[in-house]
Amino acid sequence: MEGFDILNLFIVLLAAWGGGALIKRIGYPAILGELLIGVIIGPPLLGFVESSSTLVILAEAGVILLMAYIGMEINFKDLGKASWAGLLAAVGGFVVPFALGYYVVTLSGGTSMAGLFVGIAVGVTSLATKSRILVDLNLLDTRIAYVLMAGALISDTLALIIFAGLSSFIDAGAVNMSEILLIIGKIILFFGFSTAFGLYILPRIGQWMAKKNIENRTTYFTLLLLIVFGLSELAELVGLHGILGAFIAGVFIKDGVFKDQITKDITHVFHDVSVGFMAPIFFVTAGFHVTLDVFQTDLGLLLAIVGVAFAGKILGTVIFYLPSRNGWREGLAVGTGMNGRGAVEIVIAGIGLQKGIISQEIFSILVFMAIITTLSVPVLLTWSTNWLKKRGELVKQFSREGYLILGANPLALLLGKHLSEHNKVVFIDANKGICENAKHKGFNCVHGNILDEATLKEASAKDFRTFLALTVNNEINLLASQLVNDTFYIPEKYIVISPITEIGGSINLLQSVSASTLFSGKVDLQPWIQKTQDLNYKEVEVTSDKKIATREWVKTQFSKNKTVLPLVIVDISGVKRPFRFNDSIEEDEKVIYIV
Amino acid sequence: MEGFDILNLFIVLLAAWGGGALIKRIGYPAILGELLIGVIIGPPLLGFVESSSTLVILAEAGVILLMAYIGMEINFKDLGKASWAGLLAAVGGFVVPFALGYYVVTLSGGTSMAGLFVGIAVGVTSLATKSRILVDLNLLDTRIAYVLMAGALISDTLALIIFAGLSSFIDAGAVNMSEILLIIGKIILFFGFSTAFGLYILPRIGQWMAKKNIENRTTYFTLLLLIVFGLSELAELVGLHGILGAFIAGVFIKDGVFKDQITKDITHVFHDVSVGFMAPIFFVTAGFHVTLDVFQTDLGLLLAIVGVAFAGKILGTVIFYLPSRNGWREGLAVGTGMNGRGAVEIVIAGIGLQKGIISQEIFSILVFMAIITTLSVPVLLTWSTNWLKKRGELVKQFSREGYLILGANPLALLLGKHLSEHNKVVFIDANKGICENAKHKGFNCVHGNILDEATLKEASAKDFRTFLALTVNNEINLLASQLVNDTFYIPEKYIVISPITEIGGSINLLQSVSASTLFSGKVDLQPWIQKTQDLNYKEVEVTSDKKIATREWVKTQFSKNKTVLPLVIVDISGVKRPFRFNDSIEEDEKVIYIV
Repeated sequence: MEGFDILNLFIVLLAAWGGGALIKRIGYPAILGELLIGVIIGPPLLGFVESSSTLVILAEAGVILLMAYIGMEINFKDLGKASWAGLLAAVGGFVVPFALGYYVVTLSGGTSMAGLFVGIAVGVTSLATKSRILVDLNLLDTRIAYVLMAGALISDTLALIIFAGLSSFIDAGAVNMSEILLIIGKIILFFGFSTAFGLYILPRIGQWMAKKNIENRTTYFTLLLLIVFGLSELAELVGLHGILGAFIAGVFIKDGVFKDQITKDITHVFHDVSVGFMAPIFFVTAGFHVTLDVFQTDLGLLLAIVGVAFAGKILGTVIFYLPSRNGWREGLAVGTGMNGRGAVEIVIAGIGLQKGIISQEIFSILVFMAIITTLSVPVLLTWSTNWLKKRGELVKQFSREGYLILGANPLALLLGKHLSEHNKVVFIDANKGICENAKHKGFNCVHGNILDEATLKEASAKDFRTFLALTVNNEINLLASQLVNDTFYIPEKYIVISPITEIGGSINLLQSVSASTLFSGKVDLQPWIQKTQDLNYKEVEVTSDKKIATREWVKTQFSKNKTVLPLVIVDISGVKRPFRFNDSIEEDEKVIYIV
Repeated sequence: MEGFDILNLFIVLLAAWGGGALIKRIGYPAILGELLIGVIIGPPLLGFVESSSTLVILAEAGVILLMAYIGMEINFKDLGKASWAGLLAAVGGFVVPFALGYYVVTLSGGTSMAGLFVGIAVGVTSLATKSRILVDLNLLDTRIAYVLMAGALISDTLALIIFAGLSSFIDAGAVNMSEILLIIGKIILFFGFSTAFGLYILPRIGQWMAKKNIENRTTYFTLLLLIVFGLSELAELVGLHGILGAFIAGVFIKDGVFKDQITKDITHVFHDVSVGFMAPIFFVTAGFHVTLDVFQTDLGLLLAIVGVAFAGKILGTVIFYLPSRNGWREGLAVGTGMNGRGAVEIVIAGIGLQKGIISQEIFSILVFMAIITTLSVPVLLTWSTNWLKKRGELVKQFSREGYLILGANPLALLLGKHLSEHNKVVFIDANKGICENAKHKGFNCVHGNILDEATLKEASAKDFRTFLALTVNNEINLLASQLVNDTFYIPEKYIVISPITEIGGSINLLQSVSASTLFSGKVDLQPWIQKTQDLNYKEVEVTSDKKIATREWVKTQFSKNKTVLPLVIVDISGVKRPFRFNDSIEEDEKVIYIV
């Protein structure tokens, strides 16, 4: 038994952190930097550090925790929504490269087991790669983004299940029918047990703990570790790989099992421990096992596998995407976006190497394939979506959409009228009369206390993209935006802050829930509500002749000594969005304000 | 290199969890259960599991993270406050058993190195052991509790420093003067560098990250891991043990370096990962290395060391405590309370065993000593504090004291008048006139928005024990108690909840900041404020003839159809506390209410 090697660990952690941070600066996922730095400082290039028991064991523990975390982040409800298009992309983007990868390996003399492993590795889609790139390309609200995320999820799940089946047969080395049936039986037993556990036993444990008022987060963390390692071991016992058990455990740890806040906290801790500590050790040491010789000895196979990865993924997606009727060009964009490989691929390749199914050369090729395909994503995705944009075929789609507005006062209704032209708008008000009035004017209004989760559930807060708080009470506005942020994850929150008292603390709270202020830095709503109530106002529409920050726009009005309340900005296609303080008005966009 | 052993890990985690949970049920710290379950399922008894690379490496990583966490929890400001008495208890409680332990070992034929190791192990005081027992014995607000905590902290720090010096000499095997000077030089260099790093470089890194608006918690976690492992390795390089570097790294990670919320979050994660995951592996496997033979072969030495541990710790504390003028009986209580040994002792004993300085027999004796002394704490501490109580010598002392009251309305002033008889009372009100009025009546009042941290800082919120929120606005009350909880860590928060609207969400928030409601479940304050304003009320004092829950008391009044507002409960010594809904009224205590 080797002892604990702090120096080795420190160097690898430092390298992982440096490599990850550098690569993230240029918009790539950390894993890419971790793999590259592993190749550089490890045996392949500089030989500065080598593997050790410490690294191996922390890395393996890290992979299990990472798979659990990936499972936790998968939301089957989201998958359901993406349905058709996402499923098509996922299946096409998996099956075609899988088949091509298999044939490339077997035709070049590899075993069929190696072929299957390479096929899975080539078929996998990286999920982590996506989100940052989508933000950078400003694609988050497009249909492509949604299909991409759903597609990657389905593809990963698919890959893991196929991998599970595959690995169990490898271990058993089964050839005759009775052995195969036994393996299938064991797999069914495992999935049956873990599903029963996840759907029936786990929620009961959660209820019992809630009833016992167990609030200690560490207790939940330890419990979930036990579940993750337990299902992981169970998977191993039936001949599946441990990562699958961990993944399934993660999938079942969802809202509803424990209190939302606890689930959120624990997910964070799993993220910190895996992504922030142990998993990078795995990816850096994966770089250690690469051999650079493949560029000379196996250049043909390298090019073939990378080529198959590109062509298979992109063409497969384009072809299978056709029945979605979203157009082959969108399919192409989805394909280029799904072309990255990431954590799951490296984990699977690592297992293949460890079990001796693939050679060090093939492992190296798969690592380089991951690096090259991931590098291609921003380039190709930028190109393909720009093409769509130019043709006007970049379809917007929100998974969450519309405005949930707190306060149904006359001013809020006026704003709501504008926004409802293109978007769903729902009001919440604690005053029954005011709510009735809103309904009378044709709006949807939920009557109830905003601080009561039940009210927000009744208003289906989880489906909204934007929350607007327009009461005259800063504290209610703040508390409400905190609640919709923490419990309903509404991504955009714009709230009115009245200049009634000093608001130092409020601004901190505002930042902590990443909300921003509506209309202006501070606005005294009361007079405007009165004006709209009395119909004593005038709506003015001005077109901006240059790009200008909303902040500047407001300042300009002040300098003209005009007291105006900017309501909405109208973009060139006529869609209105609320006027908020940290936005900017593009050239030719209009501002509608009231005086 | 051995591979990763999920089954082994799972069994140990499960055992640790079970052992810890069971022992906690009867009021003992988890570590005791973890040690015992290790002895039971490991080689000493059942031989059900053995150690493995996986366990060794996760355990060692766990010890480093645990020491960092222990360092994080040490607040030198708190130490400063405890000053004289705590220092006396710590020094006496360390030096005397240290010396006795050393002589027992050397006189019975052990090496002087082994003697020094045993001395440290016997001298150490367990910190983790304390808090739960203090709560159970309802001692949290006594001077003893404060001296105990400070004493344990100082004792641990002392032990670690002596251990550091000791271990560096052991490794070097130094005999001549120049070698000794070299070692001392290196140690000074290490402490110089780590202090400079902690005091100058780390805060600058914090400022830089704050300026860059880095809010990602995982980034901070990774950074702190690097610092912990980095200083740990540096300590090893100069010949000290790694745990010392980790401890020092933890000490420097304090409020002010990073944003309070980030420090709090990261401390939580370190706690979860060490106490909830890896450190229990260390304690269970420590049990593995115990041999039960010592009860036969070395019973004399076992009894001698345990005897020395008891006598040395308790007598040493009593004697050294005399100059504090707090009385020898209080010294005895402090001594019995400091008699537990815990994590630090087992860690040091484990290092001694690993380096071959102490034999497996002595290691076993030290483990049993930890178990026996820890078992004694609740028993002896209950006895000694009851004795003090009976003699009326149990002195109360708060590190935080007094009431910070939000809202200076007439009712709040009336309540404040009662509470100020024995306690510091400070009001906060956003209305300048109301605040002036309070000052006019002789109260201390800070004018400002409660949601502004600056206001709370001005009121020195960090020094208060209890926060009362008495505005008529539920949301402000809730938001304020959240702020004082999260940022100023005020332990007790009682707030008024008005029955204005449904309060489902509010109750959740109430629980999440562990606040409870004042006066009753819900109270409409407005009429009571009006009554006190108009001096149109009558104060009534009733003595309770039996123990009754406040909840029941309120119900009784309702059933009598009386509309009263219970203000304070007066205990038998005349001290008043606010009437809250989850308290209970002892026999002979009085309730003052208004009608």
